[in-house]
Amino acid sequence: MKIARVCGTVTSTQKESTLTGVKFLVVQWMGGEGELLPDYAVAADTVGAGLDEWVLVSRGSAARFIVNGETKPIDAAVVAIIDTVSKDNQLLYSKRTQY
Amino acid sequence: MKIARVCGTVTSTQKESTLTGVKFLVVQWMGGEGELLPDYAVAADTVGAGLDEWVLVSRGSAARFIVNGETKPIDAAVVAIIDTVSKDNQLLYSKRTQY
Amino acid sequence: MKIARVCGTVTSTQKESTLTGVKFLVVQWMGGEGELLPDYAVAADTVGAGLDEWVLVSRGSAARFIVNGETKPIDAAVVAIIDTVSKDNQLLYSKRTQY
Amino acid sequence: MKIARVCGTVTSTQKESTLTGVKFLVVQWMGGEGELLPDYAVAADTVGAGLDEWVLVSRGSAARFIVNGETKPIDAAVVAIIDTVSKDNQLLYSKRTQY
Amino acid sequence: MKIARVCGTVTSTQKESTLTGVKFLVVQWMGGEGELLPDYAVAADTVGAGLDEWVLVSRGSAARFIVNGETKPIDAAVVAIIDTVSKDNQLLYSKRTQY
Repeated sequence: MKIARVCGTVTSTQKESTLTGVKFLVVQWMGGEGELLPDYAVAADTVGAGLDEWVLVSRGSAARFIVNGETKPIDAAVVAIIDTVSKDNQLLYSKRTQY
Repeated sequence: MKIARVCGTVTSTQKESTLTGVKFLVVQWMGGEGELLPDYAVAADTVGAGLDEWVLVSRGSAARFIVNGETKPIDAAVVAIIDTVSKDNQLLYSKRTQY
Repeated sequence: MKIARVCGTVTSTQKESTLTGVKFLVVQWMGGEGELLPDYAVAADTVGAGLDEWVLVSRGSAARFIVNGETKPIDAAVVAIIDTVSKDNQLLYSKRTQY
Repeated sequence: MKIARVCGTVTSTQKESTLTGVKFLVVQWMGGEGELLPDYAVAADTVGAGLDEWVLVSRGSAARFIVNGETKPIDAAVVAIIDTVSKDNQLLYSKRTQY
Repeated sequence: MKIARVCGTVTSTQKESTLTGVKFLVVQWMGGEGELLPDYAVAADTVGAGLDEWVLVSRGSAARFIVNGETKPIDAAVVAIIDTVSKDNQLLYSKRTQY
């Protein structure tokens, strides 16, 4: 998994029928020092993540193992909203201190 | 998924028999600021995307979960035509304003 | 899929038994402007591609969906010999004009 | 697989229900000379790796083949705690000499 | 697949139980001109490759299609020991001339 910040949404009317009702979030990858990178992905979300929250994103076939994901053509999904990230015994991110 | 612009097509006569009738689009990846990158992929399309439209592309095993994709040797597929992309509450792309 | 030029072959005697009879081609990736990149892959070929031909290469689990690929430990395969690539209504490559 | 150093942890309350009880480690990739790279991943751990230990990390569908991983939306997992890494007959890393 | 040189080994005592008995080789990727790159991977080996031999490495789910690999959390495997690599009708590598 990679750590990412939720930074946006994608909407679509004309799509694969199995994607009806799927929420698509734009997520921005976190680098190794806790900085935000310019690179992004679009991930399906069933966890209910909101703008600016940090999340764990799974890519590849793993994305289809979220709730009701089995038959969907998705290759990235938010699988957890992050409470804390610690690195070498230092707190890199805490959801509580962000809000 | 990644966001991409449809920029071309690939045609082929001699191919895996399961690929007969599959439409192959050349898509150009969007970067994190909405800019278009030089890198590309070739994606199967069953959604009916046209030149210059922005689309969501799924890669890997997810591509075989599009309609009739189960047995095809494809590793990328257009899964949605994008209406809007918003990032940090700003509209990065809107299909309506493009045309 | 990605577009690539067939540029070589790999031969091997000592290998996984399921790979007996599989033809391995060295393919060189095409960049977004139709230029050839230094990076390469080795792809199984059942389509019959020849040196200098441009081909579509599928990677990942998709490679096992070529004819007789189901049980082989291959992660890349030539799935089509390309006739034409067009980008923004310009012909980037045509098999006919190459020969 | 890639070699990585365990450098941190991620905690999460709100997540896919199948991820309850899964330990998430932040791991930092080793480069080809044994140096530590800035890039990282978050990997599920059932092996019991501790901070600063060097581990083998599998990514992609392989991660679901760890103990009890079958149905989880994970794309990276610690699969082994490394004792030694040797390269060209030189010892690049030894767990014993690190402690 | 990618071409790589076998350059080392990884040993581990504490690991996923399904990995008992699996030999892990450190392999160094070959670049497009036959040069060796600094980047590496760790690959399971059932073919019996030795130090300095050039091999074909499959990554992703393909690695589980080697002999007895079905249930193992591995994402890379040596699938062939290379005899020759030729590119544009020139011999880039030959096992015979190396020894």
